[in-house]
This record gives sequence, C-alpha cells and structure tokens, in this order.
Amino acid sequence: MLNLKAKKIDLQAGECVVILNRKDAEKLGLRSQSRIKVRKDDRDLTALVEISGSLVEEGEIGLLEKVYEQLEAEEDKGISIIPTGRPESIDHIREKLEGEELSEHAVREIIDDIVERRLSDIELSAYVSGVYSQGMNLTETKYLTQAMIDTGDTIEFDKHPVFDHHSIGGVPGNKITLLIVPIVAAAGLMIPKTSSRAISSAGGTADTFEVLANVSLSNHQIKDIAEEVGGTIAWGGAVNLAPGDDLIIRVEYPLRIDPYPQVIASVLSKKKAAGAEYLVMDIPVGPNTKVENMDLGRQYARDFVSLGEEIGIQVRCAMSYGGQPVGTGVGPAVEAKEALEALEGKESTSSSLIEKSTSLAGMILEQGGIQEGKKEAKKLIESGEALDKMKQIIDRQGGDPEVTSEDVQIGKYSEKIRAKEEGYVGRINNHEIVRVVRTAGAPHQKKAGLILNKKKGDKVDEDEVLYIIYSDHKNNLEDAVKMANHVQPISIEGMILETHPDFQTV
Amino acid sequence: MLNLKAKKIDLQAGECVVILNRKDAEKLGLRSQSRIKVRKDDRDLTALVEISGSLVEEGEIGLLEKVYEQLEAEEDKGISIIPTGRPESIDHIREKLEGEELSEHAVREIIDDIVERRLSDIELSAYVSGVYSQGMNLTETKYLTQAMIDTGDTIEFDKHPVFDHHSIGGVPGNKITLLIVPIVAAAGLMIPKTSSRAISSAGGTADTFEVLANVSLSNHQIKDIAEEVGGTIAWGGAVNLAPGDDLIIRVEYPLRIDPYPQVIASVLSKKKAAGAEYLVMDIPVGPNTKVENMDLGRQYARDFVSLGEEIGIQVRCAMSYGGQPVGTGVGPAVEAKEALEALEGKESTSSSLIEKSTSLAGMILEQGGIQEGKKEAKKLIESGEALDKMKQIIDRQGGDPEVTSEDVQIGKYSEKIRAKEEGYVGRINNHEIVRVVRTAGAPHQKKAGLILNKKKGDKVDEDEVLYIIYSDHKNNLEDAVKMANHVQPISIEGMILETHPDFQTV
Repeated sequence: MLNLKAKKIDLQAGECVVILNRKDAEKLGLRSQSRIKVRKDDRDLTALVEISGSLVEEGEIGLLEKVYEQLEAEEDKGISIIPTGRPESIDHIREKLEGEELSEHAVREIIDDIVERRLSDIELSAYVSGVYSQGMNLTETKYLTQAMIDTGDTIEFDKHPVFDHHSIGGVPGNKITLLIVPIVAAAGLMIPKTSSRAISSAGGTADTFEVLANVSLSNHQIKDIAEEVGGTIAWGGAVNLAPGDDLIIRVEYPLRIDPYPQVIASVLSKKKAAGAEYLVMDIPVGPNTKVENMDLGRQYARDFVSLGEEIGIQVRCAMSYGGQPVGTGVGPAVEAKEALEALEGKESTSSSLIEKSTSLAGMILEQGGIQEGKKEAKKLIESGEALDKMKQIIDRQGGDPEVTSEDVQIGKYSEKIRAKEEGYVGRINNHEIVRVVRTAGAPHQKKAGLILNKKKGDKVDEDEVLYIIYSDHKNNLEDAVKMANHVQPISIEGMILETHPDFQTV
Repeated sequence: MLNLKAKKIDLQAGECVVILNRKDAEKLGLRSQSRIKVRKDDRDLTALVEISGSLVEEGEIGLLEKVYEQLEAEEDKGISIIPTGRPESIDHIREKLEGEELSEHAVREIIDDIVERRLSDIELSAYVSGVYSQGMNLTETKYLTQAMIDTGDTIEFDKHPVFDHHSIGGVPGNKITLLIVPIVAAAGLMIPKTSSRAISSAGGTADTFEVLANVSLSNHQIKDIAEEVGGTIAWGGAVNLAPGDDLIIRVEYPLRIDPYPQVIASVLSKKKAAGAEYLVMDIPVGPNTKVENMDLGRQYARDFVSLGEEIGIQVRCAMSYGGQPVGTGVGPAVEAKEALEALEGKESTSSSLIEKSTSLAGMILEQGGIQEGKKEAKKLIESGEALDKMKQIIDRQGGDPEVTSEDVQIGKYSEKIRAKEEGYVGRINNHEIVRVVRTAGAPHQKKAGLILNKKKGDKVDEDEVLYIIYSDHKNNLEDAVKMANHVQPISIEGMILETHPDFQTV
C-alpha cells in the first residue's frame, strides 16, 4: 500500500485511469495497465495504472476528471492505493470466446465489472467480440437483461399502467416519437419515453426534441411530468437506467458491431428500468438498417416478446419499411419542424410519417383497451388534441408552449441537389444520407439537416430538385455538398431495370 | 487541417495517442478516440485523439514519447493534423468475428495496421478475440505468417545452413537453450538464436542469459557473432523481427488467451525473419502448460511442419514432458548457474536437464547430417567442448569468458520450505511455482528464484526440504514465502491414491 497526494489531470479517457510516477509504480511492481484499488476515506474504486516520469511527481497520483469526482478527491489530499488482482469476469469473457454458455453468476460478474468500470478497453472489447462472435441463447440474454437492470436505477410510478414505445433504429428521419407520445398521452394513457442521442446517426430523438424543450430530466421529473400530463420525451443518458449499456456501446461503436443479444438486452433493460409494463417495438427492415431482412426481423420480434414476458413487460412488435428515411426531413431541427407540422395538420406532411406514427400509436392504444387504435390516433391528430398535449409536454419540459412549426429555425445556408438525368428514384441509401447530414454538422449543430423533395419510386425530371441540404455554417454546407456529390445517396433509374437478348433495349 | 505546436507529454501508453485542446478538437469535429493523420515535414503517422482542456493549450498538440520520437518532433515546432477515416482492416476483423475465412489481402491489411499502430486497443482486442473465437485455417495462418515476416526486418546470413531451436513454453526452469546453442555450435553448425524475455513467466531465455552476457544485439551483431563462433543467444525484442507479434501479445496477455493460429504464425515468422532454414521445436505437454494434452501437441507438430515447409523451413518437433519444471532451478540467475553447472559436468546436475537438452540438440545435429545426434551431443558436453563454445559466445556478447557456475550470485536471503507430512511428491503446479518466483522479484530482480529439492514421485519425509526460495530483498522473500504457503505448489500424497469400499483404507 502507498499513500499519495491527489492531483487532478484534465484528460478525457474512456477507461478508469490514474497516473503514477515511475518510481512509485516500481515500488509496487506496477506496470502500464496494472490494476489498483484507489481509496479516499470510505470511497474506493478500481483503476488502471498509466505511468509518467513528470506529469506527476513521486508521491503524487494523477486522477482523471471522472475518477477525481467519483472519489470526491481534493487537490493535495491523501489517496491510498493497493495493487489488486484481475477480475474473475475476464475468465468468463474467455469462456464466451470459447463458445461456452454463461451462467447467471458469470453474466452478473461481467456486467458488475463493466458498470464499476473495472475492465480495460481490451477486456471490454473481448466481451463484446465474444457475444458478437458466439452469440447468447435466450436464457443467457435474460440473465444479461436482468443484470443490466439491477446495476442501475429504476423509476417507480404511482400511476399504472405504464406504456412505452421503442424503435430499434437505423432509419434516418424517424421522428415518430414526437407524434406517438402526444397521441398516446392525449388518449389518456401514460407514456414516459426515454430516448437516446445520436451515436452514429444524424440525430437521436433526444437531440430532436431538445430543439423544442429541455430533455435532461431527473428520474423524479420524468415521473412527475408523466403522471401529470401523461407523457414525456427525456434523454435516457441523464438518468442512470441500465448504465452498462452506454459503456458497452462505447466499444461497439468503433467496431461497428451490434451483437444481437446485446440489442435485445439493451432495449428491454432500459424499458424495464424506466417502469414500462406495455411496450410497442418498431423494427424497421430494409437494406442499410440494423435489420436487413424479414427473417431477422421476425427473430427479433419473437425474442422481444418472449423475453419481455419473462421480465414482466407485454411486448408487441411491428416490422416497418426501413428502405428510406421516414417522412422527408433528416437532422434535429428539420425533424422537429416536420413533427410539429404533422401535429398542426399541415397538408404538406408526408403521408408515410402519419401512417407509421398512427399505426404504432394505435397499437399502444389497443394495448390500453381502446378499440380501432389507428383510427383513434388519426382522430387525435385531426382534432388538435395531440398538438395540445405536445404543447403541455413542451411546457412542462421548460420549452415554449406557444411554439409553432414556423418558429423552428433551420440552417440559414442551403443548397439544392438536382437530378443529373430524368428517371425514377430507385434507391435512397440511408447510410449515405446520414453521412451527408453529419458532414453538414448534425447532430451537434442542430440546424444542419436535409429535406427530401423526392422519395423512392417518384418520377424525376432532369435538373429537378432531389433534396436540399441546410447548415448554419458555410464551410460545413460546402463539405456536405461535396460529400453528396461523392456518395450520391439517391440513384435515378429508368423504368426498365433489365432487358434480355430477345427484348429490345429501351 | 490544422497546424499545431508540438509539446512532449511524458506518459506511457500502449496506443498511439496524441492530446488535443478541446477547442481545436471541436474545430475539426474530433472526439476522444477519433483518428487523425499527424505530420511533421515528410514524416507522418496515424494517431488516436484524446482531449484535454489544460494539458495542452489551444494551438498545441501533446505527443506521447513514442510518437514524439517517431515524428522526430521538436518542442514548439509545427505539426499538422488532418482527420482521417477508420482503417478498412476493421471490417476484416468483423468478418473474422462473423466466422468468415480471411483473404490474403484482408490479413495483410490487418497486420499492416497493427504494425503501423493504426488500430486502437478496442480494435486490436477484437482481432485477437476473433482469431481466438473463430480460429484460422492453415491457409489463413500462412498469410498471417507471411504478413508478419514482411512487416519487419530480416537477417540475411552469408553462411548456410542456418539452424534454430524454439520451445513454445509454459514450463518453468526451461534453461535448455543455454545448453543447446553451445552444443550445436561446438558441433560446427551455426545456430543464431533469438529469445524472448518473460511476459507471464519467471524468466525468459533472454532474461536468463543476460545474467552472463549482453543480449541486446543488433541484426549485424547477431550475424557477425553467429558466423564467427557458430552461435548467439540474443534478445529478440532488440531487433525488429516480425514486430507485429509483440503488439499482439500486449493484448493477449491481460486476456490470458493465446490463439492457436497466432502461436504458429508468431514462432514461424520470427524464425523465418531470423534466417532459419532448419528448426527443432520443443512442445512441452502437461497440465498447466500451453499444451495440455498430446492430441493438441500433435496438431501443433503437424501444423508447424507443414507450414514450415510452405515458407522454406524444415521443421522437426519433439513433444516433451511438461508436467513439472525442467531441472531444479527457476529464476534468471538460478537457471544461468544451473546451465553452467551442466556444461561444467558437475555431478549434481539434474539428469532430466541433460536428457532434454541433448535430445533436442541431437535432433538438430541429425538435421545437419551428424549421425547419432544425441550421443554426439552428450560427448560434446563431456569433452568440455560445449563449455568452451559457451565461453566464446559469452565473450563475444560482452560477458566474462572466465565465468564459472560458482561466480553466479543468487539472492542473499533464502528460506527453506519443508514438507508438512511424509509421502510422495504427487503434483508440482507450474503456474504456482511461477507465482512464487515472481513474488520473490523475478524476472526484474534476476537473483530472485527457487531451487527444487524434490521432484515428482520423490519420497519425502516429514519436515524435509521441498524447495528453497531466494531473493535479494527481505520483504520480497517474505511475500514469496507467504505466497508459497498460500498456493502450496507441491502436493504430497500417500502412495495409495484411492480406495474403494471393499478395500481397507490405508
């Protein structure tokens, strides 16, 4: 054991790292990435060691910001360290890589160590790789879900039942939550929705709704608002629901892998922790989405339903068409504007957005015992009741309840992208649409976005506008236009896709 | 692109990392772990970004030591950075995790990116996990071996043929190289041996021979010494032979995984790069070694032979008994002393050490056309020719050629560990022997070690000495004794292992 003086080091890092002077490290036989227990008074945590000859003096310990805060450390105050062994969970990770089925105990050890940040990036990546490579059966997935629930907070509602909705994502422009939540709440059912920010997309639901209101709500605020007005749209990252998920996603993201059991456990654990008792899942299927074919979609649906049952959530799933963006807008402000337009009953609203939102909202209404749910959902839009409910939610979340779609500002610079030839829109590549919008500055610059003028199957004349890119920064816009010309997210085809030797070429 | 001033940051890290000020990172849309190209004059490399608000000022870039050196950076001089995409090899890593067979191109991309340190720990760990979880067939293993050779230096000898020897390890006390090299060289065959330092063991061959001579030799020194006196024992880490291997091992070590194809490629690439044309492999088989059963040993043997043939090395393999330490000593100085004693013909020398060393050396002599190799090897020890050759090698590597086994100092503090009951030595656990020796300070403290007084099957009286632990530091010795009493690496059994109800208990 060694007693050292705390020194705050201003450096971001994914791992839980402390910096020791080379001499102190040698005294304890520690090397780079050795594991130690770090203690201040009655607080302790496990950290990985990095070594320096000069960033910290002998007798000092460098604490990265998160560690410093977690220990409630004070500059120059005493911190004790003691070398500690490797966590047992690493052996279970190796078992998974070897294709073994993990016990409940093993899964819990792994998730505990992930949440307590006792694993290095190398170890965490091996876990994600093992689950991706070898899979997990439904029993292991249940253990995983339960462990992820138990390692975080939960929201306990006084009002019941609690309805919820989730889309497993991958489709740009999917602003349906901004319609579903007010519709369901207007029907008198309670739907406290937590949403994520964008990781690889052009904007998560939390980014989009943040254009209209504050989304960083506490557990208590979520409970109070939902119980009072029937609905909320909150950022899940502000509350500590199934926190293991975000730590795992951090490693999945650079590898661009999304292990099947992890997706199931991620959704259901967050929903259970948020109190959901009824859940409608949207599973978009199509090229360049998470679920590329109907068979995989059906497998997800079956597993969501049966695992939901095991943990006390009644799940219904809908596979939706994910082959192109939902509606016409992609990007936070553009989508918030489009959602408001839909609720305001503007005629310009894309029918696919209304269709999808009311179908899913209708399923929730039917779970709540309301007959002909979709018809009822449409009525709630037409009557303006959903818009009123939306304004109540915006108001309770600190936004301007008088806001209209016209008030929502989008990027002041824009450029029209036109068709180089006449034909029909054959393919809209979701990934490439997202690349263009991200290059324009989304999701961090909320006013960056794109509005489609044409969708799949539409007739296009030469030089007709396909879509418009928006940005508040001229150089971002220029880069996005360059990207658009490079990746060409929309392809124009003739009506004849293929001819054979015995037909004449058109 | 951004031009920044270099600032050296004194911090060890496994990854190739640079530190940017938060404001500069935001300008370029970079986050923690984003990848950038870093350039100074005509030197460039790919690095991962970490972000700080104060370790570097706006306009500065923090370069960790290795990066600073590789760029030949100078304090306050200009460095330009430009964001860069993720390497294509990450997609191939994902393919491997999905169980796909990798093409030659894919394997090369991965190894190139590893050697150029373009992959993060997360990505590197996913590669190792994929190879461990899904394996590689012999064709992929050949691509891997060739890629690892091509990304490093090679030693070109003027004299031929080049003989070599390798043990795939896992057995403590395996000092046989210190006998094999002088025997083979004394027989007139050239054997330029490169060896590793300990990673998880109590001492690698390089650590052990360093007790007697300098092992950090350049490519040229290895060539010159081998061509002149017939043999060398050099540290492989000082030369740039198949450098990908060490970078991969760094990630395997914390996970305690050793993917089969990686072991094959690691050995053969290093040997080929070091010029080997004939190679004798020692494959120790036994509990708590790398190879736990004969079937796995035979598979290794077959694959070493056939892959060796493909890349131009004639390989012969011997499976040896790995169920307990070789000889009696474990730890650098103790083993160097024991090897010298064997060459000096001391009667106390363990017969298993002589047996194993002359068997393997004999196989090399036979590859070189010398009949009855083992007999010949024994003769070369008995005649003192092997000892003379050893002294020539020590001399040429900067050691004292007059050294005798009595000159080799071992730890000045020691403690005898005694049997608690009478019986027979039933089991010696290799892992636990190593833990005790490492606790005593090895491999960094070369004089730390252990000498076995009893080996498997030996009769032991109550209170008789089982082994002696040595260390130059009293507290290390105390810790090692505690560890020894805790893990009990040697178990004493009665001669009757099991009785049944119809037999009388003895």
